[in-house]
Parts: sequence; C-alpha cells; structure tokens
Amino acid sequence: MQHFDKKIFFATNNNNKILEAKHILSNFGIAVEKTEVKKVEIQSDTLEEIVLYALKKIGKTTCPVVIEDSGLFIEKLNGFPGPYSSYVYKKIGCDGILKLLENVEERKAKFVSIVGLKKGRLIRIFKGECDGKISYKRAGEHGFGFDPIFIPENGERTFAEMSLEEKNLWSHRSKAFKALGSWIQSHKHI
Amino acid sequence: MQHFDKKIFFATNNNNKILEAKHILSNFGIAVEKTEVKKVEIQSDTLEEIVLYALKKIGKTTCPVVIEDSGLFIEKLNGFPGPYSSYVYKKIGCDGILKLLENVEERKAKFVSIVGLKKGRLIRIFKGECDGKISYKRAGEHGFGFDPIFIPENGERTFAEMSLEEKNLWSHRSKAFKALGSWIQSHKHI
Repeated sequence: MQHFDKKIFFATNNNNKILEAKHILSNFGIAVEKTEVKKVEIQSDTLEEIVLYALKKIGKTTCPVVIEDSGLFIEKLNGFPGPYSSYVYKKIGCDGILKLLENVEERKAKFVSIVGLKKGRLIRIFKGECDGKISYKRAGEHGFGFDPIFIPENGERTFAEMSLEEKNLWSHRSKAFKALGSWIQSHKHI
Repeated sequence: MQHFDKKIFFATNNNNKILEAKHILSNFGIAVEKTEVKKVEIQSDTLEEIVLYALKKIGKTTCPVVIEDSGLFIEKLNGFPGPYSSYVYKKIGCDGILKLLENVEERKAKFVSIVGLKKGRLIRIFKGECDGKISYKRAGEHGFGFDPIFIPENGERTFAEMSLEEKNLWSHRSKAFKALGSWIQSHKHI
C-alpha cells in the first residue's frame, strides 16, 4: 500500500479531476480527498482571476484546500470557450465546437489549468498549459469535456483516446498539479 | 425641457443600455445617471442569481443603484449563450451563432433582461422577456450585441433594423425597466 506523508482537500464536483489529481500527487506522497467547500466563481476572461477570487472567498482554512479551473482556448475563435468551457460544453458540446470550426483549417488550441492552494492565509497559484489542436471529428471515450476533440502537440490521438496515465504525461492539469506537488514537497508546513 | 422627479444611478459600461434605460424611464419622470460602481459578476446559469449576488456585493447605498444583466437563450442550443452572451458575442459574434444554427430549422430564442435595484438594504428584481427567433442572416445597424440576428415574435425585422423607440416597444430590457419605473413611481421613499 502506498505511503502518503501529506494530504490536500480538493474542492471539486468533478470526479475525473479527482482521479487525475490523485494519480499525479501520489508520486509526491500526497493524498487527495474530495471536499464540499462551496466555491464562488466569478465571470472573468482569465482563469487566474477566477481561481484567486474563489480562494479568497473560501475563508481561512487550517487544512490545505485546493481548487482547479481549466479551459480550452481556441485561437481562431479568439480564445473561446476559455474560462466558460464547462458551461459551453454543457450547452453545445464537442459537436458545437466542431461546427464552429467547419471549413476552418487553422485549428490551433491550448488547454490551460490553474490550480490554487489555500492554507491559513497562504495562497499559491500553479499553472499548466498544453498546446495542441482541435481534431476534425470526435474520437475516444476516456476523459471528459472536450477531451474527444483535443489532440496535444506532436500527438496524433485525442486526449479521449488516451489512458489516464498517458493523458497525464501531456496534460495541462497534470503540469499544474506537478507544480503543486513539488512546491508542497519543498514546504514543510503544508 | 423634461421634468424629472427622481433619479437612479445605473452601474454599467454599456452606453447603449444607458440610452435604452433613459428612453424608458423618462416616461416615468425618472432620470438616469451612469455610475462606476464595480460589479462582481458570478458564473451562474441564471441571470437572477448573477444580479442578486452583484447587488449584495455593492454594499449599502444611500442613492438608488441599478444594475442590469441580460442574455439570449436559444432553444435548440439548450439556452446557449444565456448568461454569457456578452462574452460569447465578443468571441464568436453573430456569425458564430449563425454558424451553430446552420441547417437548423427550429430557431426559437428569447432575450431576457433582469434589472436589479438597490437602495439602503432594499433589493428588488425586475424581469423582462422577449420571445422571438434567430434570423438566417445579419440585418440592421442599430442596437448592439446579438440585435442583428434577433427577430421578435410577430415581427419581420431584427432589433438592429429598428429605431430605439421601436425596439423599446418590444424589448426584454424595456419591459424590465418599465416594471422598475412603475415600481419606483409607487414607492415614495425611492
């Protein structure tokens, strides 16, 4: 059985995100527990602002609480759907994005993840990015959200065609959580 | 010169909204002044929640402060772009919506406006709706946002093809501001 030295509380309703975080942070000896902290999400063009505001609103915490926000930024659509990716996914799905990019050759996109940590008054932000492009059709059943239409740079398959382990080699979220993991490792008081 | 008995302070950066509000509220003897109050806009599926949260965050005010949020809800797109209409407009514009509705015959949509009033601790919400449909192409130069692709029910032209006076006969925003106007008229302490 794996040994954990530390534990963070991840405030999210998305079980896929919990799985991804657990997989990454276990390599740093950090356990992940889902928590129900209510988040205040503001409207903003930047994920950083959304995460910072939410962290401030959580109030003082004695345990390390982590939140994450991420978005898909498509160059030809001026960064749409960006910080509103989960709303847009719910409303128009992968098919909506594919329709918006019909007959569009330039399909560059990036996934961005911002992980925010709060403990006591301490607040830290970690960022992960993954460059890539939007595919011409949906492929794969793994992952969630826009994973079936996003192909990371130098790859040929979508995130949804990859196992969790493989997605975590590339993904924006894994980069942000790795940055969090190594920061926590080097800070004894967390 | 017109006589005004009362005055509200409208917190918005959108000068078109100021114009529309002035036009409506002048009939109620209410003057409208633009104000710079900073609004906190949360992410939510309902405009009511967004406006209520923003009103609460304004703090106690001695003058009557008004905010407004509105959205275009397209039936076939599950209510998209809804509360995020101004963001979506900025990113993909009218053309993006027309592309999403290419080869879609069912084009029913509605504009919704929520006007919120705060004075002291008092908070009131007023709602206006306008049923209609999304046109097959853009038309008209008046108004703003998605006006060039929205045709109100029983009409044949888009909001952007109408003068301000004509748009105000139908529009969601005018209905909400008329409700505000008649409420203020019947409350002496505002």
